Amino acid sequence: MTVRIAVGGASGYAGGELLRLLLNHPDVEIGALTAGGNAGSTLAAHQPHLVPLASRVLAETTADTLAGHDVVFLALPHGHSAAIAAQLGPDTLVIDCGADHRLTDPADWTRWYGGDHAGAWPYGLPELPGARAALAGATRIAVPGCYPTGASLALAPALAAGLVEPDVVVVSVSGTSGAGKSPRPSLLGSEVMGSASAYGVGGAHRHTPEIAQNLAAAAGGPVTVSFTPVLAPMPRGILTTASAPVRPGVDVAAAAEVYRTAYADEPFVHLLNRDGDLWPATAATLGSNAVHLRVTVDPGAGRLVAVAALDNLTKGTAGAAVQSMNIALGLPETTGLSTVGVAP
Amino acid sequence: MTVRIAVGGASGYAGGELLRLLLNHPDVEIGALTAGGNAGSTLAAHQPHLVPLASRVLAETTADTLAGHDVVFLALPHGHSAAIAAQLGPDTLVIDCGADHRLTDPADWTRWYGGDHAGAWPYGLPELPGARAALAGATRIAVPGCYPTGASLALAPALAAGLVEPDVVVVSVSGTSGAGKSPRPSLLGSEVMGSASAYGVGGAHRHTPEIAQNLAAAAGGPVTVSFTPVLAPMPRGILTTASAPVRPGVDVAAAAEVYRTAYADEPFVHLLNRDGDLWPATAATLGSNAVHLRVTVDPGAGRLVAVAALDNLTKGTAGAAVQSMNIALGLPETTGLSTVGVAP
Amino acid sequence: MTVRIAVGGASGYAGGELLRLLLNHPDVEIGALTAGGNAGSTLAAHQPHLVPLASRVLAETTADTLAGHDVVFLALPHGHSAAIAAQLGPDTLVIDCGADHRLTDPADWTRWYGGDHAGAWPYGLPELPGARAALAGATRIAVPGCYPTGASLALAPALAAGLVEPDVVVVSVSGTSGAGKSPRPSLLGSEVMGSASAYGVGGAHRHTPEIAQNLAAAAGGPVTVSFTPVLAPMPRGILTTASAPVRPGVDVAAAAEVYRTAYADEPFVHLLNRDGDLWPATAATLGSNAVHLRVTVDPGAGRLVAVAALDNLTKGTAGAAVQSMNIALGLPETTGLSTVGVAP
Amino acid sequence: MTVRIAVGGASGYAGGELLRLLLNHPDVEIGALTAGGNAGSTLAAHQPHLVPLASRVLAETTADTLAGHDVVFLALPHGHSAAIAAQLGPDTLVIDCGADHRLTDPADWTRWYGGDHAGAWPYGLPELPGARAALAGATRIAVPGCYPTGASLALAPALAAGLVEPDVVVVSVSGTSGAGKSPRPSLLGSEVMGSASAYGVGGAHRHTPEIAQNLAAAAGGPVTVSFTPVLAPMPRGILTTASAPVRPGVDVAAAAEVYRTAYADEPFVHLLNRDGDLWPATAATLGSNAVHLRVTVDPGAGRLVAVAALDNLTKGTAGAAVQSMNIALGLPETTGLSTVGVAP
Repeated sequence: MTVRIAVGGASGYAGGELLRLLLNHPDVEIGALTAGGNAGSTLAAHQPHLVPLASRVLAETTADTLAGHDVVFLALPHGHSAAIAAQLGPDTLVIDCGADHRLTDPADWTRWYGGDHAGAWPYGLPELPGARAALAGATRIAVPGCYPTGASLALAPALAAGLVEPDVVVVSVSGTSGAGKSPRPSLLGSEVMGSASAYGVGGAHRHTPEIAQNLAAAAGGPVTVSFTPVLAPMPRGILTTASAPVRPGVDVAAAAEVYRTAYADEPFVHLLNRDGDLWPATAATLGSNAVHLRVTVDPGAGRLVAVAALDNLTKGTAGAAVQSMNIALGLPETTGLSTVGVAP
Repeated sequence: MTVRIAVGGASGYAGGELLRLLLNHPDVEIGALTAGGNAGSTLAAHQPHLVPLASRVLAETTADTLAGHDVVFLALPHGHSAAIAAQLGPDTLVIDCGADHRLTDPADWTRWYGGDHAGAWPYGLPELPGARAALAGATRIAVPGCYPTGASLALAPALAAGLVEPDVVVVSVSGTSGAGKSPRPSLLGSEVMGSASAYGVGGAHRHTPEIAQNLAAAAGGPVTVSFTPVLAPMPRGILTTASAPVRPGVDVAAAAEVYRTAYADEPFVHLLNRDGDLWPATAATLGSNAVHLRVTVDPGAGRLVAVAALDNLTKGTAGAAVQSMNIALGLPETTGLSTVGVAP
Repeated sequence: MTVRIAVGGASGYAGGELLRLLLNHPDVEIGALTAGGNAGSTLAAHQPHLVPLASRVLAETTADTLAGHDVVFLALPHGHSAAIAAQLGPDTLVIDCGADHRLTDPADWTRWYGGDHAGAWPYGLPELPGARAALAGATRIAVPGCYPTGASLALAPALAAGLVEPDVVVVSVSGTSGAGKSPRPSLLGSEVMGSASAYGVGGAHRHTPEIAQNLAAAAGGPVTVSFTPVLAPMPRGILTTASAPVRPGVDVAAAAEVYRTAYADEPFVHLLNRDGDLWPATAATLGSNAVHLRVTVDPGAGRLVAVAALDNLTKGTAGAAVQSMNIALGLPETTGLSTVGVAP
Repeated sequence: MTVRIAVGGASGYAGGELLRLLLNHPDVEIGALTAGGNAGSTLAAHQPHLVPLASRVLAETTADTLAGHDVVFLALPHGHSAAIAAQLGPDTLVIDCGADHRLTDPADWTRWYGGDHAGAWPYGLPELPGARAALAGATRIAVPGCYPTGASLALAPALAAGLVEPDVVVVSVSGTSGAGKSPRPSLLGSEVMGSASAYGVGGAHRHTPEIAQNLAAAAGGPVTVSFTPVLAPMPRGILTTASAPVRPGVDVAAAAEVYRTAYADEPFVHLLNRDGDLWPATAATLGSNAVHLRVTVDPGAGRLVAVAALDNLTKGTAGAAVQSMNIALGLPETTGLSTVGVAP
């Protein structure tokens, strides 16, 4: 089986990562590559690491250029995918790496993004309860945000098992590629190297409602989320520290057992041994679809603390997209993906 | 007035930063420089940036080599300062950059560091209530830990004013120099560049009781502290995100006003404007004694969130030592120190 | 065909990279993993990115533990491979990532490394003239040094075609992983981040004779080499700038044509378009076996200048080892290797 | 004596560094701060590290806003300074950090920058022979380019003393701040972290004629220059490796003696000991006005090799501007400047 795919937004970071993974996918043939302002230039000018595609010329991102493929990946600014998907027809598998179809509550959408809600699509985080069933055979998929991926995987088992109160604090340290490729002074290398900085503090980041939505589904009830993103001087990676008040009688052994059970069959969740002194580090996940995860209980503070590391562009975006595509198409879920990071 | 100083541990990072600041201090003359295993070599081999002292030869760290100075700075592994201080006599101002004399509760010391408590010294964080009075004229000073400096300044005003419950979550992102200069594989550039990693998770870091001690003093009662340190790929800097459940009726304006009042006369606490979109970034504090700080309230999460940035080697260690020395000796507190960072 | 392999030195950087590549090689089964001081610990403690091998326990590096495999990769300190290879028998393919068998002239060996020469093995830089023939069917292979790989590929075509005088200047900027994983203060993250530094200046680096040997083979006569390595704050990558006096009448078009011809059939040499403004960048090669290369002529300076980028651990070490193994065993040369880098 | 100064281009990197140094200059009062597109905003939005000037509002860069100061520093895009200087009157000391007045040969200007030459001003590299005399009492000063500063100091003594042939190869590794603050995709943190890349290869960089001009003055005759700049992942710093064919009989001792004599009285040139294993590293110069320099002779290659490290924003731009101002005004040359770097 060979699937012909197109990528809308191929000159950006998510688009580049999709192509990097798809070049290594045995069942995929790479079709149209499109862009907005960069249409007309070669891919080499934007993605010099994608040697086999160096001479490809970027087409304009339109429904026409994207039509005629089995799968269309959209890595576009938010607000663009619904219109294109509508024109691609119901048989095309459309995988949206943007935010348009992640939130299920229209009021959430309007509050956080503004305008009308385009509707929710099956959510591409297969490790969440029920997600795989919704993805199998799907023709529309919403790829999760990078921060929600880390926060949700870090805390969903604890909330689902009732280990903690539904009142969580998440601080996530992210590499700069999550901010995209549009140049802004604050994202210049000169600014970010040697600096850690907070932004979107106090519940201002748009990934907050998505985290809350995922955790509420796991908890079976509303979850309060305090989320603070921190920018760190590295191109890739998210290191999520997440904690919540632990319920009486829950110790580290019990917590670890819950996580072990929850993720026992997950090919991409790698639990670090609770007895060693190793905690997740983003470098170990670079370029892989793995999430490194470890949980503990701090009796002094009365909190369960979970730490997750992942690559924001791979498991946090493009890897999740490919993983979801595999499920939707009935391919082995791990095809074209790896748990092996590039380190050091 | 010229003060003759010595530095024990001059080949390490804290020692180097002390010398960098003291070279710029108009009232200081630099005397003996000592080291442990590096004794006998020139300072240039360890601190090539300290050009005016390049040819200085490091003496062995003993009470003898450190004697005969007005001020002795100790930047030694913990457990070494009490014995040396005892031999230096009560008239010498001894400023300990290590942990030995920070904790007031002997039981805390024994639990976190092991062995017998060497006794608490006046605590060199002048911005805490009552600290300056204890430092004036002191002949023994304990320099705070770098993480406690950020966490304490971030939350003390809120706790003192009763804005929040005494149950705090602190996640601090640190540069690597805080881990010192003793080579370990995990601190190699190849390992840390491109990586964010958590360590000491779940209340295991020794700075936890020091944070709790400072915050309890501010709150006037016990404070529960969940502390998670994160290593980020930068040589210097600590970015602290700290939060606690906000009490009813406290909004961002009220919180900002409390902080403005608390730090109105502090020369080294720089509050970022609460109306702008600027949040603290460590790069802006590099090499300076400033702490950049901003507070907000997240009504959705029901938490007050404060973010502080500082240079772990300057305000977090050597700058605090010099600031405390100035106070102890009756010099203007800001002498030899600056709020101007080196950026980008 | 399944080849059973062992890796001696599996806890170091070269060993880790070998395993990363071999995990993705369809014809390989990973057997014994050995180490020196790290024997007895799990691979996870040293290579947390190699998730599928996390629980593997490292054996001691001896001929016994390495025996019984089809291919043995040695990533050991220099001086250790000859004795082990002698005990492994002539049928085992031994691929030495160390320096012991690279130099053909025993006098060179004694001068640069000291002691007796262990003898030269077929040299694993297939892109050099004649190298593939020597590698086909070989049972002993010397993997080139990382700097010689960049310098040789950058200048061999120009020297072979007589475009330049045999008097070259090479300045190579390298990431820190080339210095290995043995902790030294100068390799700490705190030291290397934010810093570029030269070392081994003035012909003192041991890769100098290897560069000269390769270029002399290309030129058909002796070549004078001035080589300066520079350490830059990045984990991986070598950016080589190489130049030599250009002979009369050679312009950029002629030079580019010579390189195009020389590398026309090379799967891992990627020539950047001479008309664009793109020059090689190491990030584009991260984790790949590609060398990005571009040549120009500076008429004002009278020099041909070539710039090459590669990943020192992949094409510069482990990728070259796998590529050479493929040739030796008669497998397709690119098996398990990629030209696609991980960027950004 | 208090000098009132203005800075045109205060929101950029050179402007910020000027202000950082001038805040520490005892004889300076900071007047107007101007900008182009950023006029109207506060300095805090662009230079958060300059705490004492945080609330200053940027004026428009015009001759009017800059008039009425004793000294005007211009940190503007090239082509703008001549017109402004003309309107400021001959009594104002105008110090141009841009390129407009560096080249003495109008033909060079037209070839490399295009358009008409604005005329050469006294050149602010006091360490070059004759430069101080031209700067004393000057009212117009051209600050050198950052690359020419390193290359000129590295090779001028050797050329002046006839140690080498006038045919030099310079490869300079630079931090990203040299490229300025105008956002471009290639300068994003995501792109530059983890990457070394060459640009302006083959004599295409505009600093080439400035290097040649300085070296020719030292040599007393034309010098051929091959110059290759390399971008490295660090905010600041230039590491210059420079070499030339050594004349017969010149060994490392002779070369070191020539440099020692040439720079014996230079407060900002720090020669590293030729017997140790320390070579210049940019981190040791961060934020200082020092140039760390070491020379050797490679007998095998027949070349003298010199390595220089400096901070491109300090000695490479703003520090040279302040140093030159001091000389022009008859102040002690080192006022407000330091040889002490901020490290690690």
